[in-house]
Amino acid sequence: MTSPIDFWFSIGSPYTYLSVMRIDRFEDLHGITFRWRPFSVRAIMIEMDNIPSRKPAKLAYMWRDIERRAAGSLCDFPRRPPYPLQNFDLANRIAVVGAAEGWCEDYVRATYARWFGLCEEAGCEPNVSASLKEVGQDPARVLALAQSDETGRAYAAATAEAKSLGIFGAPTFVTGGEIFWGDDRLEDAVRWHGKGTLVRR
Amino acid sequence: MTSPIDFWFSIGSPYTYLSVMRIDRFEDLHGITFRWRPFSVRAIMIEMDNIPSRKPAKLAYMWRDIERRAAGSLCDFPRRPPYPLQNFDLANRIAVVGAAEGWCEDYVRATYARWFGLCEEAGCEPNVSASLKEVGQDPARVLALAQSDETGRAYAAATAEAKSLGIFGAPTFVTGGEIFWGDDRLEDAVRWHGKGTLVRR
Repeated sequence: MTSPIDFWFSIGSPYTYLSVMRIDRFEDLHGITFRWRPFSVRAIMIEMDNIPSRKPAKLAYMWRDIERRAAGSLCDFPRRPPYPLQNFDLANRIAVVGAAEGWCEDYVRATYARWFGLCEEAGCEPNVSASLKEVGQDPARVLALAQSDETGRAYAAATAEAKSLGIFGAPTFVTGGEIFWGDDRLEDAVRWHGKGTLVRR
Repeated sequence: MTSPIDFWFSIGSPYTYLSVMRIDRFEDLHGITFRWRPFSVRAIMIEMDNIPSRKPAKLAYMWRDIERRAAGSLCDFPRRPPYPLQNFDLANRIAVVGAAEGWCEDYVRATYARWFGLCEEAGCEPNVSASLKEVGQDPARVLALAQSDETGRAYAAATAEAKSLGIFGAPTFVTGGEIFWGDDRLEDAVRWHGKGTLVRR
Protein backbone atom coordinates (compact mmCIF):
# COMPACT_ATOMS: atom_id res chain seq x y z
CA MET A 1 0.00 0.00 0.00
CA THR A 2 1.40 3.40 -0.99
CA SER A 3 1.45 6.41 1.30
CA PRO A 4 -1.69 8.55 1.28
CA ILE A 5 -2.21 11.97 -0.22
CA ASP A 6 -2.81 14.51 2.55
CA PHE A 7 -6.14 16.24 2.03
CA TRP A 8 -6.05 19.51 3.99
CA PHE A 9 -9.49 21.04 4.38
CA SER A 10 -11.64 23.34 6.47
CA ILE A 11 -15.36 22.88 6.79
CA GLY A 12 -16.57 26.29 5.70
CA SER A 13 -14.59 26.36 2.46
CA PRO A 14 -17.14 26.21 -0.37
CA TYR A 15 -14.76 24.68 -2.91
CA THR A 16 -13.96 21.92 -0.43
CA TYR A 17 -17.51 20.70 -0.96
CA LEU A 18 -16.62 19.60 -4.50
CA SER A 19 -13.61 17.63 -3.26
CA VAL A 20 -15.43 16.07 -0.33
CA MET A 21 -18.12 14.80 -2.67
CA ARG A 22 -15.84 13.32 -5.32
CA ILE A 23 -12.67 12.26 -3.56
CA ASP A 24 -13.82 8.69 -2.96
CA ARG A 25 -14.05 8.14 -6.72
CA PHE A 26 -10.30 8.70 -6.93
CA GLU A 27 -9.77 6.17 -4.21
CA ASP A 28 -11.89 3.65 -6.07
CA LEU A 29 -10.34 4.33 -9.49
CA HIS A 30 -6.69 4.76 -8.59
CA GLY A 31 -6.37 2.64 -5.46
CA ILE A 32 -4.91 5.55 -3.52
CA THR A 33 -5.96 6.80 -0.12
CA PHE A 34 -6.33 10.28 1.33
CA ARG A 35 -5.50 11.32 4.86
CA TRP A 36 -8.11 13.84 5.97
CA ARG A 37 -6.45 16.79 7.73
CA PRO A 38 -8.77 19.41 9.23
CA PHE A 39 -7.18 22.81 9.90
CA SER A 40 -8.20 26.44 10.18
CA VAL A 41 -7.83 27.97 6.75
CA ARG A 42 -9.63 30.99 8.18
CA ALA A 43 -6.82 31.69 10.67
CA ILE A 44 -4.26 31.58 7.86
CA MET A 45 -6.34 33.71 5.50
CA ILE A 46 -6.96 36.35 8.17
CA GLU A 47 -3.22 36.45 8.84
CA MET A 48 -2.68 36.99 5.08
CA ASP A 49 -5.39 39.66 5.03
CA ASN A 50 -7.26 37.56 2.48
CA ILE A 51 -10.94 37.90 3.38
CA PRO A 52 -13.20 36.61 0.59
CA SER A 53 -16.31 38.31 1.90
CA ARG A 54 -14.64 41.71 1.36
CA LYS A 55 -14.25 40.91 -2.36
CA PRO A 56 -17.81 40.79 -3.69
CA ALA A 57 -16.90 40.23 -7.37
CA LYS A 58 -14.69 37.30 -6.46
CA LEU A 59 -17.30 35.87 -4.10
CA ALA A 60 -20.08 36.10 -6.69
CA TYR A 61 -17.82 34.37 -9.18
CA MET A 62 -16.92 31.64 -6.70
CA TRP A 63 -20.53 30.62 -6.18
CA ARG A 64 -21.30 30.64 -9.89
CA ASP A 65 -18.16 28.63 -10.63
CA ILE A 66 -19.05 26.03 -8.00
CA GLU A 67 -22.63 25.80 -9.26
CA ARG A 68 -21.48 25.26 -12.83
CA ARG A 69 -18.96 22.60 -11.86
CA ALA A 70 -21.36 20.80 -9.53
CA ALA A 71 -24.30 20.83 -11.96
CA GLY A 72 -25.46 17.50 -13.25
CA SER A 73 -23.18 15.55 -10.93
CA LEU A 74 -23.51 14.00 -7.48
CA CYS A 75 -22.38 17.40 -6.14
CA ASP A 76 -25.40 19.25 -7.55
CA PHE A 77 -27.13 21.44 -4.95
CA PRO A 78 -30.44 23.29 -5.15
CA ARG A 79 -29.44 26.79 -3.99
CA ARG A 80 -26.59 28.72 -2.41
CA PRO A 81 -26.06 27.58 1.18
CA PRO A 82 -25.55 29.94 4.15
CA TYR A 83 -22.07 31.49 4.08
CA PRO A 84 -19.78 32.28 5.81
CA LEU A 85 -20.23 29.85 8.70
CA GLN A 86 -20.91 31.29 12.14
CA ASN A 87 -19.38 28.32 13.97
CA PHE A 88 -16.51 27.60 11.63
CA ASP A 89 -14.14 26.48 14.40
CA LEU A 90 -16.62 24.17 16.08
CA ALA A 91 -17.35 22.43 12.77
CA ASN A 92 -13.63 21.81 12.31
CA ARG A 93 -12.87 20.87 15.92
CA ILE A 94 -15.44 18.10 15.55
CA ALA A 95 -13.52 16.94 12.46
CA VAL A 96 -10.32 16.93 14.56
CA VAL A 97 -12.03 14.59 17.05
CA GLY A 98 -13.26 12.48 14.15
CA ALA A 99 -9.75 12.23 12.71
CA ALA A 100 -8.46 10.90 16.03
CA GLU A 101 -11.34 8.43 16.34
CA GLY A 102 -11.67 7.29 12.71
CA TRP A 103 -14.97 8.85 11.58
CA CYS A 104 -13.72 12.19 10.23
CA GLU A 105 -14.40 11.50 6.57
CA ASP A 106 -17.95 10.27 7.16
CA TYR A 107 -18.78 13.26 9.36
CA VAL A 108 -17.36 15.79 6.90
CA ARG A 109 -19.32 14.26 4.04
CA ALA A 110 -22.48 14.24 6.15
CA THR A 111 -22.15 17.82 7.34
CA TYR A 112 -21.36 19.14 3.84
CA ALA A 113 -24.27 17.18 2.37
CA ARG A 114 -26.63 18.87 4.86
CA TRP A 115 -25.01 22.30 4.45
CA PHE A 116 -25.18 22.33 0.64
CA GLY A 117 -28.09 19.97 0.09
CA LEU A 118 -30.47 21.17 2.81
CA CYS A 119 -29.02 24.64 3.58
CA GLU A 120 -28.49 23.54 7.19
CA GLU A 121 -25.43 25.49 8.28
CA ALA A 122 -22.42 23.34 9.21
CA GLY A 123 -21.28 23.90 12.79
CA CYS A 124 -24.86 24.81 13.86
CA GLU A 125 -27.90 22.83 14.91
CA PRO A 126 -29.61 20.83 13.52
CA ASN A 127 -26.66 20.03 11.24
CA VAL A 128 -24.15 19.11 13.94
CA SER A 129 -26.28 16.61 15.87
CA ALA A 130 -27.88 15.11 12.78
CA SER A 131 -24.51 14.61 11.08
CA LEU A 132 -22.96 13.05 14.18
CA LYS A 133 -25.89 10.69 14.70
CA GLU A 134 -25.72 9.74 11.04
CA VAL A 135 -22.14 8.56 11.51
CA GLY A 136 -22.96 6.69 14.72
CA GLN A 137 -21.63 9.24 17.22
CA ASP A 138 -23.25 10.68 20.34
CA PRO A 139 -23.48 14.46 19.89
CA ALA A 140 -23.12 15.32 23.61
CA ARG A 141 -19.97 13.24 23.99
CA VAL A 142 -18.37 14.57 20.79
CA LEU A 143 -19.26 18.21 21.49
CA ALA A 144 -17.61 18.02 24.92
CA LEU A 145 -14.48 16.58 23.34
CA ALA A 146 -14.52 19.09 20.46
CA GLN A 147 -14.60 21.97 22.93
CA SER A 148 -11.80 20.59 25.11
CA ASP A 149 -8.39 22.20 25.37
CA GLU A 150 -6.80 19.05 24.00
CA THR A 151 -8.77 19.33 20.77
CA GLY A 152 -8.00 23.04 20.63
CA ARG A 153 -4.30 22.27 20.82
CA ALA A 154 -4.52 19.60 18.12
CA TYR A 155 -6.45 22.00 15.86
CA ALA A 156 -3.89 24.78 16.38
CA ALA A 157 -1.01 22.35 15.77
CA ALA A 158 -2.59 21.17 12.50
CA THR A 159 -3.04 24.78 11.39
CA ALA A 160 0.59 25.57 12.24
CA GLU A 161 1.70 22.49 10.33
CA ALA A 162 -0.38 23.54 7.30
CA LYS A 163 1.16 26.98 7.39
CA SER A 164 4.67 25.54 7.65
CA LEU A 165 3.97 23.50 4.49
CA GLY A 166 3.08 26.71 2.61
CA ILE A 167 -0.66 26.08 2.62
CA PHE A 168 -2.77 29.23 2.28
CA GLY A 169 -6.14 27.96 1.05
CA ALA A 170 -8.50 25.01 1.11
CA PRO A 171 -8.73 22.41 -0.14
CA THR A 172 -5.04 21.63 -0.55
CA PHE A 173 -3.57 18.27 -1.48
CA VAL A 174 -0.01 17.42 -0.45
CA THR A 175 2.07 14.61 -1.88
CA GLY A 176 5.81 14.18 -2.30
CA GLY A 177 6.51 17.62 -0.81
CA GLU A 178 4.34 19.33 -3.46
CA ILE A 179 1.21 21.28 -2.62
CA PHE A 180 -1.79 21.43 -4.94
CA TRP A 181 -4.34 24.09 -4.08
CA GLY A 182 -7.97 23.88 -5.06
CA ASP A 183 -10.49 21.23 -5.99
CA ASP A 184 -9.40 21.84 -9.57
CA ARG A 185 -5.92 20.52 -8.72
CA LEU A 186 -7.16 17.18 -7.35
CA GLU A 187 -6.40 15.48 -10.67
CA ASP A 188 -2.91 17.05 -10.71
CA ALA A 189 -2.23 15.80 -7.18
CA VAL A 190 -3.33 12.29 -8.08
CA ARG A 191 -1.16 12.30 -11.21
CA TRP A 192 1.84 13.65 -9.29
CA HIS A 193 1.33 11.08 -6.54
CA GLY A 194 1.59 8.27 -9.06
CA LYS A 195 4.26 9.63 -11.39
CA GLY A 196 6.10 12.55 -9.75
CA THR A 197 5.27 14.71 -12.78
CA LEU A 198 2.25 16.11 -14.60
CA VAL A 199 3.78 15.48 -18.02
CA ARG A 200 1.62 13.33 -20.28
CA ARG A 201 3.83 11.07 -22.43
CA MET B 1 -19.18 31.37 -37.98
CA THR B 2 -20.08 31.58 -34.29
CA SER B 3 -19.33 34.54 -32.04
CA PRO B 4 -15.92 34.54 -30.39
CA ILE B 5 -15.05 33.88 -26.77
CA ASP B 6 -13.69 37.06 -25.18
CA PHE B 7 -10.21 36.47 -23.81
CA TRP B 8 -9.51 39.16 -21.21
CA PHE B 9 -5.86 39.36 -20.28
CA SER B 10 -3.11 41.57 -18.91
CA ILE B 11 0.49 41.17 -19.90
CA GLY B 12 2.10 40.79 -16.50
CA SER B 13 -0.23 38.05 -15.32
CA PRO B 14 1.88 34.90 -15.00
CA TYR B 15 -1.01 32.46 -15.46
CA THR B 16 -1.93 34.27 -18.68
CA TYR B 17 1.28 32.87 -20.15
CA LEU B 18 -0.21 29.37 -20.11
CA SER B 19 -3.33 30.54 -21.96
CA VAL B 20 -1.43 32.64 -24.49
CA MET B 21 0.69 29.65 -25.38
CA ARG B 22 -2.12 27.12 -25.78
CA ILE B 23 -5.17 29.06 -26.88
CA ASP B 24 -4.57 28.54 -30.60
CA ARG B 25 -4.89 24.79 -30.13
CA PHE B 26 -8.50 25.34 -29.07
CA GLU B 27 -9.09 27.39 -32.18
CA ASP B 28 -7.66 24.61 -34.34
CA LEU B 29 -9.48 21.79 -32.56
CA HIS B 30 -12.87 23.35 -31.96
CA GLY B 31 -13.18 25.87 -34.78
CA ILE B 32 -13.87 28.68 -32.32
CA THR B 33 -12.21 32.06 -32.19
CA PHE B 34 -11.09 34.24 -29.31
CA ARG B 35 -11.27 38.01 -29.18
CA TRP B 36 -8.16 39.28 -27.40
CA ARG B 37 -9.11 41.96 -24.87
CA PRO B 38 -6.22 43.69 -23.07
CA PHE B 39 -7.15 45.45 -19.81
CA SER B 40 -5.52 46.47 -16.54
CA VAL B 41 -6.06 43.64 -14.09
CA ARG B 42 -3.62 45.47 -11.83
CA ALA B 43 -5.96 48.48 -11.50
CA ILE B 44 -8.84 46.19 -10.53
CA MET B 45 -6.74 44.15 -8.11
CA ILE B 46 -5.37 47.24 -6.39
CA GLU B 47 -8.93 48.52 -6.03
CA MET B 48 -9.85 45.17 -4.42
CA ASP B 49 -6.77 45.35 -2.20
CA ASN B 50 -5.58 42.08 -3.71
CA ILE B 51 -1.82 42.41 -4.12
CA PRO B 52 -0.17 39.05 -4.87
CA SER B 53 3.34 40.24 -4.01
CA ARG B 54 2.19 40.84 -0.41
CA LYS B 55 1.22 37.17 -0.10
CA PRO B 56 4.52 35.29 -0.28
CA ALA B 57 3.08 31.79 0.31
CA LYS B 58 0.55 32.28 -2.47
CA LEU B 59 3.16 33.73 -4.80
CA ALA B 60 5.59 30.87 -4.22
CA TYR B 61 2.79 28.44 -4.90
CA MET B 62 1.77 30.26 -8.08
CA TRP B 63 5.20 29.89 -9.65
CA ARG B 64 5.50 26.24 -8.70
CA ASP B 65 2.00 25.55 -10.02
CA ILE B 66 2.78 27.25 -13.34
CA GLU B 67 6.09 25.40 -13.66
CA ARG B 68 4.43 22.06 -13.05
CA ARG B 69 1.65 22.72 -15.53
CA ALA B 70 4.01 24.10 -18.20
CA ALA B 71 6.58 21.32 -17.85
CA GLY B 72 7.03 19.07 -20.84
CA SER B 73 4.74 21.15 -23.04
CA LEU B 74 5.22 23.98 -25.50
CA CYS B 75 4.86 26.32 -22.50
CA ASP B 76 7.94 24.94 -20.73
CA PHE B 77 10.32 27.68 -19.56
CA PRO B 78 13.84 27.41 -18.15
CA ARG B 79 13.59 29.57 -15.00
CA ARG B 80 11.31 32.04 -13.23
CA PRO B 81 11.04 35.24 -15.24
CA PRO B 82 11.29 38.75 -13.73
CA TYR B 83 8.13 39.63 -11.80
CA PRO B 84 6.22 41.86 -11.24
CA LEU B 85 6.63 43.95 -14.40
CA GLN B 86 7.97 47.47 -14.03
CA ASN B 87 6.22 48.71 -17.18
CA PHE B 88 3.00 46.78 -16.86
CA ASP B 89 0.83 49.52 -18.38
CA LEU B 90 3.10 50.14 -21.37
CA ALA B 91 3.12 46.42 -22.22
CA ASN B 92 -0.68 46.43 -22.21
CA ARG B 93 -1.13 49.75 -24.01
CA ILE B 94 0.89 48.29 -26.88
CA ALA B 95 -1.57 45.38 -26.91
CA VAL B 96 -4.44 47.91 -27.09
CA VAL B 97 -2.84 49.42 -30.21
CA GLY B 98 -2.34 45.92 -31.60
CA ALA B 99 -5.99 45.05 -30.99
CA ALA B 100 -7.05 48.10 -33.02
CA GLU B 101 -4.61 47.29 -35.82
CA GLY B 102 -4.91 43.50 -35.95
CA TRP B 103 -1.59 42.25 -34.56
CA CYS B 104 -2.41 42.03 -30.84
CA GLU B 105 -2.33 38.25 -30.59
CA ASP B 106 1.02 37.92 -32.37
CA TYR B 107 2.60 40.63 -30.22
CA VAL B 108 1.31 39.14 -26.96
CA ARG B 109 2.63 35.73 -27.87
CA ALA B 110 5.98 37.21 -28.88
CA THR B 111 6.39 39.31 -25.74
CA TYR B 112 5.39 36.43 -23.43
CA ALA B 113 7.75 34.05 -25.26
CA ARG B 114 10.62 36.47 -24.62
CA TRP B 115 9.55 37.20 -21.05
CA PHE B 116 9.26 33.54 -20.00
CA GLY B 117 11.66 31.95 -22.47
CA LEU B 118 14.52 34.47 -22.33
CA CYS B 119 13.75 36.31 -19.05
CA GLU B 120 13.51 39.57 -21.02
CA GLU B 121 10.97 41.61 -19.08
CA ALA B 122 7.79 42.44 -21.01
CA GLY B 123 7.23 46.19 -21.32
CA CYS B 124 11.00 46.86 -21.18
CA GLU B 125 13.76 46.85 -23.75
CA PRO B 126 14.95 44.75 -25.48
CA ASN B 127 11.66 42.82 -25.25
CA VAL B 128 9.38 45.61 -26.56
CA SER B 129 11.29 46.46 -29.75
CA ALA B 130 12.22 42.88 -30.54
CA SER B 131 8.63 41.67 -30.12
CA LEU B 132 7.25 44.48 -32.26
CA LYS B 133 9.79 43.91 -35.03
CA GLU B 134 9.01 40.19 -34.89
CA VAL B 135 5.37 40.94 -35.71
CA GLY B 136 6.26 43.40 -38.48
CA GLN B 137 5.70 46.64 -36.55
CA ASP B 138 7.91 49.72 -36.25
CA PRO B 139 8.70 50.19 -32.54
CA ALA B 140 8.95 54.02 -32.69
CA ARG B 141 5.56 54.38 -34.38
CA VAL B 142 3.83 51.92 -32.04
CA LEU B 143 5.37 53.36 -28.86
CA ALA B 144 4.16 56.85 -29.78
CA LEU B 145 0.67 55.49 -30.34
CA ALA B 146 0.76 53.39 -27.16
CA GLN B 147 1.61 56.44 -25.08
CA SER B 148 -1.09 58.62 -26.66
CA ASP B 149 -4.15 59.86 -24.78
CA GLU B 150 -6.38 58.01 -27.20
CA THR B 151 -4.80 54.67 -26.28
CA GLY B 152 -4.96 55.62 -22.60
CA ARG B 153 -8.70 56.19 -22.94
CA ALA B 154 -9.25 52.90 -24.79
CA TYR B 155 -7.25 51.04 -22.12
CA ALA B 156 -9.23 52.66 -19.30
CA ALA B 157 -12.52 51.94 -21.10
CA ALA B 158 -11.58 48.27 -21.52
CA THR B 159 -10.69 48.05 -17.83
CA ALA B 160 -14.02 49.64 -16.86
CA GLU B 161 -15.83 47.20 -19.15
CA ALA B 162 -13.99 44.26 -17.58
CA LYS B 163 -14.93 45.46 -14.12
CA SER B 164 -18.56 45.91 -15.13
CA LEU B 165 -18.60 42.29 -16.30
CA GLY B 166 -17.47 41.16 -12.84
CA ILE B 167 -13.90 40.40 -13.90
CA PHE B 168 -11.37 40.53 -11.05
CA GLY B 169 -8.44 38.50 -12.36
CA ALA B 170 -6.59 37.42 -15.48
CA PRO B 171 -6.92 35.53 -17.65
CA THR B 172 -10.72 35.54 -17.81
CA PHE B 173 -12.83 34.05 -20.59
CA VAL B 174 -16.32 35.38 -21.24
CA THR B 175 -19.00 33.65 -23.28
CA GLY B 176 -22.78 33.79 -23.11
CA GLY B 177 -22.72 36.17 -20.15
CA GLU B 178 -20.65 33.72 -18.07
CA ILE B 179 -17.16 34.49 -16.82
CA PHE B 180 -14.49 31.82 -16.41
CA TRP B 181 -11.45 32.89 -14.41
CA GLY B 182 -8.05 31.33 -14.82
CA ASP B 183 -6.13 29.36 -17.39
CA ASP B 184 -7.54 26.27 -15.69
CA ARG B 185 -11.06 27.31 -16.77
CA LEU B 186 -10.22 27.59 -20.47
CA GLU B 187 -11.67 24.11 -21.10
CA ASP B 188 -14.81 25.04 -19.15
CA ALA B 189 -15.26 28.21 -21.23
CA VAL B 190 -14.87 26.27 -24.47
CA ARG B 191 -17.39 23.65 -23.34
CA TRP B 192 -19.86 26.31 -22.19
CA HIS B 193 -19.44 28.21 -25.46
CA GLY B 194 -20.48 25.15 -27.43
CA LYS B 195 -23.17 23.72 -25.16
CA GLY B 196 -24.27 26.32 -22.60
CA THR B 197 -23.49 23.85 -19.84
CA LEU B 198 -20.55 21.95 -18.36
CA VAL B 199 -22.57 18.78 -17.87
CA ARG B 200 -21.08 15.71 -19.55
CA ARG B 201 -23.85 13.44 -20.78
